[in-house]
Amino acid sequence: MDDNIILLAHGAGGKKSADLISSLFLRYFGNPILDLLGDSAVLESGGQRLAFTTDSFVVDPLFFPGGDIGKLAVCGAVNDLAAAGARPLALSAAFILEEGLDFETLERVTASMSDAAADVGVSIVAGDTKVVTRGSADRMFITTSGIGLLPDGIELPSPERAAPGDVVILSGTIADHGMAVMACREGIRFSSEIQSDCAPLHGLVAAVLEAAPSVHCLRDPTRGGLAAVLNELAARSGVCIEIEESSMPVSEDVRVACELLGIDPLHVANEGKMIAIVPQGEAEKALGAMRRHPRGSRAAVIGRVQAAPAGRVRLRTVMGSLRILDVPAGDLLPRIC
Amino acid sequence: MDDNIILLAHGAGGKKSADLISSLFLRYFGNPILDLLGDSAVLESGGQRLAFTTDSFVVDPLFFPGGDIGKLAVCGAVNDLAAAGARPLALSAAFILEEGLDFETLERVTASMSDAAADVGVSIVAGDTKVVTRGSADRMFITTSGIGLLPDGIELPSPERAAPGDVVILSGTIADHGMAVMACREGIRFSSEIQSDCAPLHGLVAAVLEAAPSVHCLRDPTRGGLAAVLNELAARSGVCIEIEESSMPVSEDVRVACELLGIDPLHVANEGKMIAIVPQGEAEKALGAMRRHPRGSRAAVIGRVQAAPAGRVRLRTVMGSLRILDVPAGDLLPRIC
Repeated sequence: MDDNIILLAHGAGGKKSADLISSLFLRYFGNPILDLLGDSAVLESGGQRLAFTTDSFVVDPLFFPGGDIGKLAVCGAVNDLAAAGARPLALSAAFILEEGLDFETLERVTASMSDAAADVGVSIVAGDTKVVTRGSADRMFITTSGIGLLPDGIELPSPERAAPGDVVILSGTIADHGMAVMACREGIRFSSEIQSDCAPLHGLVAAVLEAAPSVHCLRDPTRGGLAAVLNELAARSGVCIEIEESSMPVSEDVRVACELLGIDPLHVANEGKMIAIVPQGEAEKALGAMRRHPRGSRAAVIGRVQAAPAGRVRLRTVMGSLRILDVPAGDLLPRIC
Repeated sequence: MDDNIILLAHGAGGKKSADLISSLFLRYFGNPILDLLGDSAVLESGGQRLAFTTDSFVVDPLFFPGGDIGKLAVCGAVNDLAAAGARPLALSAAFILEEGLDFETLERVTASMSDAAADVGVSIVAGDTKVVTRGSADRMFITTSGIGLLPDGIELPSPERAAPGDVVILSGTIADHGMAVMACREGIRFSSEIQSDCAPLHGLVAAVLEAAPSVHCLRDPTRGGLAAVLNELAARSGVCIEIEESSMPVSEDVRVACELLGIDPLHVANEGKMIAIVPQGEAEKALGAMRRHPRGSRAAVIGRVQAAPAGRVRLRTVMGSLRILDVPAGDLLPRIC
């Protein structure tokens, strides 16, 4: 019965999302570019390589500590371009508004998008606005798309390039975004307010690629968290990724919040973090470049790539045991981005 | 009071939409590309000119005679690219789904998008899916974005190029899409079922541009209908556009439906029509090219461009009087696309 309807989990970035993509979207839309399922599509045109990406944002609440739906929509597009190794060229923004939304809310969100775009140095060049009757949408949804320019003559980072021996580097603490939104939505208060990490990562990625041009994979661990993204990379590259729980940067408040709510921080969305999988020989340089960047000061080596068991992610726990780290099956955190 | 909230009219393509764009979006996002407000943005990159467009689709019902939300979403992006004179290069599709949507509906829409994209010869290369809790959206919304390639070395059609003496050509009957959706939604039946004109126009535009390379403006009259689009072109070009009611192609059933519902067909959305404003010397060729194309067989000259009164659209009625044709102020037809 449930197989015939759309569930929240179909949008959560985990197993059900992957099923929907393969059983429906790839079946009908499948083509050599889409099939790669990168954070951005890579197009060739007139001797140039372009990156192209789109994401809808439905986060609830619209404003949360550290960001809002507008900042999220701009950073989301920029980070998907960055994960392809692209420099952002232009963004578009399409708004679906609920009749009765107050103008002030829309203006705050618009101002925030404008600030985020200015911070990146990219323009919003195309847009659209639809308004639906009261009750047909929840206040506002935003869809951003982005075009980026890819550098010439280098092999691009891509999800199937992780190789045994590679080093897995994470640019900072995990689970900040998801827990900031959850705490705000549920009205939970901790010793200090948890801030979303929502931030554009084009600068951090450019610094990493300059220091370590052979980076094999880049990915921003949004919906489904680190667990979903590492599983995807392990599957796509046909390798095993082994990570160390003790190396994982997690803020104290976020750790406490996750324990209280019974949520694994490895399953929680990030909006300002990047994973880089780097050949051993360039790992030191990549890590150094991240740490020197203001958005990567807590960057850390969190694991290694191994040959087997292919397609698996294994977590070495603080206690020293080794367990399979699976993709989240359901959706603990709906409307997180 | 009403000035402080978003109304349906803000998304209707008329005066309120224009106000929202200028008072909010251009104020915060304004840049030389966005400010042109073309159907697509035009970007320069590495010696190439690219067109970039985005639109959200929220049509209700999802399926209507002649189309569905999926076909509409693909044709909408393709036609915005075509109106910029661009050949479609790639599309993206972002879905916002309501929890509980039946899978079969999503599959029908996906199949329809796939068919429409195949018809155009363009691929959907990037996508996204978000699911929101039951009641937070009405079944499904789709946002498509498109990238197109613009030909080298020619001056592109654009909304500010209409000049006195130019001829206004319309590719076929008006108001079919809006009245098909309205009739379907309201359960109104006429002698025969009104079909939406929803169709991709890249081929028709290519044929027109080949026959008449000096075309000054191209525009697809969607939300707000012919009246909104002609007013925009008149304002942007600083000219008067005078059209003849007697020359306006309208199907008999659509005319009757509009009369019954008290709706002016000039205010109703089209999804498979193009307006071309063409220098006198090329008008014959442009009209001929349209008429030879299967989607332009009922193309007609509907008016002329004059110098004054600048920024106005005037309609010469069947009775011979001349009246100002204004932009629709409210929204008679919410969720028409």
